[in-house]
Amino acid sequence: MRKILAIDAGGTSTRAVVLDLAGRCFGYGRAGSGNPTASGVDGAVTELGKAAERAVAADQSTTDHESAAIIALAGSASPLLIERLSKRFAGLGFGGEPVIEPDLLGTYFSGTFESDGYALIAGTGTVAGRITGGRLALARGGTGWLLGDGGSGYWIGHQVMRAVVASLDGLGPDTTLTGLVLDSLRIGTELGSVRGRPHSLVTLMEETYALRPIGLARFAPLAFAASEDEVARGILTSAAGSLAQLLAATRDPAVNGPVVLGGSVLAAGMRVAPSIFAAPLTAAAGGAELIAVPDGVVGAAILGLRRAGVVIDSELFSRLQRGVSELRPALTAEGSVAG
Amino acid sequence: MRKILAIDAGGTSTRAVVLDLAGRCFGYGRAGSGNPTASGVDGAVTELGKAAERAVAADQSTTDHESAAIIALAGSASPLLIERLSKRFAGLGFGGEPVIEPDLLGTYFSGTFESDGYALIAGTGTVAGRITGGRLALARGGTGWLLGDGGSGYWIGHQVMRAVVASLDGLGPDTTLTGLVLDSLRIGTELGSVRGRPHSLVTLMEETYALRPIGLARFAPLAFAASEDEVARGILTSAAGSLAQLLAATRDPAVNGPVVLGGSVLAAGMRVAPSIFAAPLTAAAGGAELIAVPDGVVGAAILGLRRAGVVIDSELFSRLQRGVSELRPALTAEGSVAG
Repeated sequence: MRKILAIDAGGTSTRAVVLDLAGRCFGYGRAGSGNPTASGVDGAVTELGKAAERAVAADQSTTDHESAAIIALAGSASPLLIERLSKRFAGLGFGGEPVIEPDLLGTYFSGTFESDGYALIAGTGTVAGRITGGRLALARGGTGWLLGDGGSGYWIGHQVMRAVVASLDGLGPDTTLTGLVLDSLRIGTELGSVRGRPHSLVTLMEETYALRPIGLARFAPLAFAASEDEVARGILTSAAGSLAQLLAATRDPAVNGPVVLGGSVLAAGMRVAPSIFAAPLTAAAGGAELIAVPDGVVGAAILGLRRAGVVIDSELFSRLQRGVSELRPALTAEGSVAG
Repeated sequence: MRKILAIDAGGTSTRAVVLDLAGRCFGYGRAGSGNPTASGVDGAVTELGKAAERAVAADQSTTDHESAAIIALAGSASPLLIERLSKRFAGLGFGGEPVIEPDLLGTYFSGTFESDGYALIAGTGTVAGRITGGRLALARGGTGWLLGDGGSGYWIGHQVMRAVVASLDGLGPDTTLTGLVLDSLRIGTELGSVRGRPHSLVTLMEETYALRPIGLARFAPLAFAASEDEVARGILTSAAGSLAQLLAATRDPAVNGPVVLGGSVLAAGMRVAPSIFAAPLTAAAGGAELIAVPDGVVGAAILGLRRAGVVIDSELFSRLQRGVSELRPALTAEGSVAG
């Protein structure tokens, strides 16, 4: 039986599924960041390997004869990564070089099997693309935490921390974010100062500068938790505007089709703060249908099937979506922001 | 003859002067970043030592009997830094533990000898303070590139790079900053793309992510060079607004006195782009006199003299300012942004 190992490698977590050419799903596995930019080659190989191993271990069906691996990944895969993954996957029964596809296509085909449309991802980072004829015709964004990624989990977390520091430093308004951030870092609010600064501000600065900058994405969920607070609402409104602008920049009036939304920020935005996110994204989508997906693993499976020569129809697509959602752990575990 | 070694340690450069208790200046020296936060303890000791050695070497006067060193420094000095500086300066004839004073006081007393007033520094970072009775009564800002420092050299350079990346990525307006940034990194503008992105954008991203983030301060001068460009002007206007807000947050209606402006961004702002910087800062100063100083070395000397029991009067202050400016190399070498 010919099988496919399909993987969606994100900045925070990785999901793998084993399926056959009929779209039946046999095993599902999850692990940490499989993104080489976020985790380095070693870390990515470890986590991609773990997710794959778990999916293969969960597969109770007969042994494979022929098999192939496909990975939907942000950014580019180095020859070193591909070589090391080939070895790792060969040990799991999936020989040959794994195929790397853009994460935008994994996300897109997790929401639709139409060949023309758009995908917008906002997780730790952001990226958007136009899909024509089933291929990525144009990508915008994806320029990273320092140079771009407006509206991403990093961007929101960074703005949260800047707002809290400004407030503690007497430069910005009071916000409920301050208590949430200090609690999350277990920093007390005792009075007293160090060299003229509040004790809590000094400790907050020390702890934050000890993180890698990209680690600030962990504070993004606090903006959603405090979305009634004026400062938090301002941050989310600005994020939604940036994401809408990114999506709009990929639009071509001649290309109509669904807009698939992926990544933890968009999942939280559409679920927790639809009053902030829905209107600008709907406007940017030019009236097209918005489809939010929890991750890109169904799309990775579609890409694997297409590459094996399988024609995707509505029935196969539905079977895949159902199969993955039956194997996937409850959404709560997947639904955290910047995941 | 009793002598003082007075040093102003900045994020980009360090300045040292040797003087006697009458305020006569005998030697001046300059070196790289003496800030332990920017350069680490090793780097700071090296550069502070170099600047001191050069000032001592330039001193043609008679040998000292008693002497002391004082350093105006952003942030705090660790016991390790003080111990290593003690050894280094003892070798130059300045025994005892060097005294560390806030950079805000070095800047303030470089512009005035009045005991009440305000100082605002915008170099690589930003900080502002209220001075009463010759001491720092309140400090605001100084929270670093990631968490604060709006309007700093880092902040301006970062916004320049984000604007250029947005423009190259089709997400922001055209700007003359693009050509200036690409030229400064010797990146060609040949056509062609890498995985759907312009070649120049891909190269720019690679080169920028290879820098330490704080290194983005080096692009701040390009905003001043392009201050007629709408995007650059927007960045500078926003920077001036943040700096005015920082200064305003230190104001106490009961404390009147001059406002001393230090750091490369304010020097460039008041000289190159006064139409952007002067109005908001004048408003934030509440009508007080604005005094721009090229660095904090005169103030470090004042702090050293005060500690030796010398009372500072107008004549002594003028002699010091004259003495330092005669020894200091031409302003052009000092006047670059983020210096």
